[in-house]
Amino acid sequence: MAVELNEDLIQQVEQLVEQKADEKLLDLFGDIHHADIAEILDDLEQRSVTYVIKLLGSEKTAEVLMELDDDDREKILENLSAREIASEIQEMDTDDAADILAELDLIIRQRVIAYLDDEEHASNILELLKYDENSAGGLMAKELVKINENRSVTNCMSQMREQAEEVTRVHSIYVVDDQDRLKGRLSLKDLLTAASSANISDIYITKVDFVDVNTEGEEVARIMQKYDLEAIPVVNELGRLMGRVTIDDMVDFIKEEAERDYQLAAGISEDVDSGDTVWQLTRARLPWLILALIGGFISVNVLGLFQPAMRAHEVLFFFVPLIAAMAGNVGVQSSAIVLQGLANKSLKGTLWQRLIKEILLSLLNGFILAILLICGSVFILGLDFTIGLTVAISLISVILTASMIGTLIPIILDKQGIDPAMATGPFITTSNDICGILIFFSIAKWILGF
Amino acid sequence: MAVELNEDLIQQVEQLVEQKADEKLLDLFGDIHHADIAEILDDLEQRSVTYVIKLLGSEKTAEVLMELDDDDREKILENLSAREIASEIQEMDTDDAADILAELDLIIRQRVIAYLDDEEHASNILELLKYDENSAGGLMAKELVKINENRSVTNCMSQMREQAEEVTRVHSIYVVDDQDRLKGRLSLKDLLTAASSANISDIYITKVDFVDVNTEGEEVARIMQKYDLEAIPVVNELGRLMGRVTIDDMVDFIKEEAERDYQLAAGISEDVDSGDTVWQLTRARLPWLILALIGGFISVNVLGLFQPAMRAHEVLFFFVPLIAAMAGNVGVQSSAIVLQGLANKSLKGTLWQRLIKEILLSLLNGFILAILLICGSVFILGLDFTIGLTVAISLISVILTASMIGTLIPIILDKQGIDPAMATGPFITTSNDICGILIFFSIAKWILGF
Repeated sequence: MAVELNEDLIQQVEQLVEQKADEKLLDLFGDIHHADIAEILDDLEQRSVTYVIKLLGSEKTAEVLMELDDDDREKILENLSAREIASEIQEMDTDDAADILAELDLIIRQRVIAYLDDEEHASNILELLKYDENSAGGLMAKELVKINENRSVTNCMSQMREQAEEVTRVHSIYVVDDQDRLKGRLSLKDLLTAASSANISDIYITKVDFVDVNTEGEEVARIMQKYDLEAIPVVNELGRLMGRVTIDDMVDFIKEEAERDYQLAAGISEDVDSGDTVWQLTRARLPWLILALIGGFISVNVLGLFQPAMRAHEVLFFFVPLIAAMAGNVGVQSSAIVLQGLANKSLKGTLWQRLIKEILLSLLNGFILAILLICGSVFILGLDFTIGLTVAISLISVILTASMIGTLIPIILDKQGIDPAMATGPFITTSNDICGILIFFSIAKWILGF
Repeated sequence: MAVELNEDLIQQVEQLVEQKADEKLLDLFGDIHHADIAEILDDLEQRSVTYVIKLLGSEKTAEVLMELDDDDREKILENLSAREIASEIQEMDTDDAADILAELDLIIRQRVIAYLDDEEHASNILELLKYDENSAGGLMAKELVKINENRSVTNCMSQMREQAEEVTRVHSIYVVDDQDRLKGRLSLKDLLTAASSANISDIYITKVDFVDVNTEGEEVARIMQKYDLEAIPVVNELGRLMGRVTIDDMVDFIKEEAERDYQLAAGISEDVDSGDTVWQLTRARLPWLILALIGGFISVNVLGLFQPAMRAHEVLFFFVPLIAAMAGNVGVQSSAIVLQGLANKSLKGTLWQRLIKEILLSLLNGFILAILLICGSVFILGLDFTIGLTVAISLISVILTASMIGTLIPIILDKQGIDPAMATGPFITTSNDICGILIFFSIAKWILGF
């Protein structure tokens, strides 16, 4: 926070790289936090980035690499040799190291692994690579402080000092039995306030939240958030302590999930940001637009069915965008509420109770909007009351249908094991557009009889 | 996690309440985590909730209350006397206590404050009430462990033991000078591994991230996430240590912000969930639907302007939903990317660079979609090539305009100090619907000349 990240600083770094003023560069970067270095690198030319990474040395750059975007990191790693990548990985915590290795090309990955000197570190990393990246096993790090339940407090203190050297933040000391099975935990505070003559078995807390290696990331996040945990131990099928997930990784996970859901709702299917290339952005956006185009074609056909109505009541056609917009908006609202309920596991009551509530809600909203619509079309647009009434009745039906679709589709997808977040945004609006138009003209046909 | 939360448990609790079986209830709830108790209460009848809260005693219920929804908590507090509320608040950390007091009616708040026995706790809470709830001051708690820089490690250990009693999680020990100004920090680990003869001034870390009491919550979240902090000290204008914000509160804050943005994008303006009443949900949803209705009226008028075209080229009207849907989808995509860039402060380059990129992107997407559209309308719908071409050219123009609107509106709102999240969803889709239709028929008129 001490260094102001601005255009001047970037230019200064670029100049120093050009002059190969290594001393000055080392001096400059020496005091900067690795997260800030990552931000600076983000604004540099690719050539300068590689230069700085090679200059700084892996102890510092290992942490910088973890702060970078996947794309930027990939570009940097392409410019490093397998040996150089291995020395970066040597410095990383096991979870970060495994993430980096997973991003590498299989052949390069093998070569990098061969260069890893510390065998224990290497085998820990390889173990983590086995787990699904969205599971507790894929999110955990092997670094933790553990103690056998049969030790004394004094013994624990000295062991802890040793183990803590390798662990950035201790949070809890996990208590295990002779088979390495998780028995409980001990906070540093408890240890500090305990008499040194006490035994660990007398003071540890047997109630400890834990997750299985296969628990999904979302569930880990939910548990950690619900119980305000800063770290949670991960055990295998035999109850053996395998690692722990820490809150800082969980914060990133929660943030990424939220961004992903937000993007999906907006019709963006890959994780992109404003800095990505036109091509990457197209890949993320175009599929949804093609979906909307197909929906549009269907609505062309649907409207074609009602061509006779156009001749009899031209003005009805002017209400098509209004009806479609209403259907889309209501559908997105309903699905958003269901989706958040599903995500937070706060969806209560039976499906019927939910639907009845949506029906009541739609009727209430629908009636208010219908009255506004009739007043508007009679007094502002000067239309026939019958036309106003027809559109209003259609509007209520469309709102009712759209809210049903918006409520049911995510629930059905979820039951089928498909990510319900896919259902919001373009998918709901497109299907509701078509249904809305179909309902509108069917009702108009029935009332006005064309 | 030991107790299964299900329908049976709820029924059992309801029965025990009916029988006034206090012993059994205390037994049952004794072993359950406060977050789980909150979940159980969520499913009980209001009468039983009040009964259980009064039975359990404030030491346990203070934490339960914090886990509940605002609405549920409000209902419970309504059934408690000022003295009972005060005894709950007595047990809470200062930040939670201040949040609860802020929710109370002014008259009740005064009465509750009068009942607070612990004067220091009371004055700490009152201090927190002065800050904006979305600022670091409003988010921080007064509970922390601090030590004067002139003390020794041994002295620190004993002081720490004393202070730590009141602090749930220590994280860092903050080092202050005689004027209580923040000088640095010390981790528990550092303290444990330091020689007991050392002085604090020799071992503490002078580089410490901190925020000002007036720093906005979003900024606090960004800093804590960027630097992987689990707690951040908060100082006042004089640099004096006022409190600290912890990561568990920040996780809740990040989650709430993400949900709020998601809901705004879906056209839901208040914080609601699926459990809220029809009336609350209507209040959150109806305003956006009225906005869409007004937009719909404008599009009725716009279409009315092109009535002659309807007679000349009926089929053009069938493409209205397609054009409107495209305009809406593209606008939402563009605005979502800008919004996330604004939120993460990752928006790079000048406004012109952004716009040029959007233009390129729109042209690329537009051309691909235009070719699909021409093929579809000629070969599937069997329309004239001229009609297909007219719609295709309009489509490209509409996509271009919609992406400009989607990009510019959030940036303009942000510069005006208005929350740009308001701009996504219904607002963007409605304005893009209207612009899209206007552009479509203007181009059609120009090409087909009606």
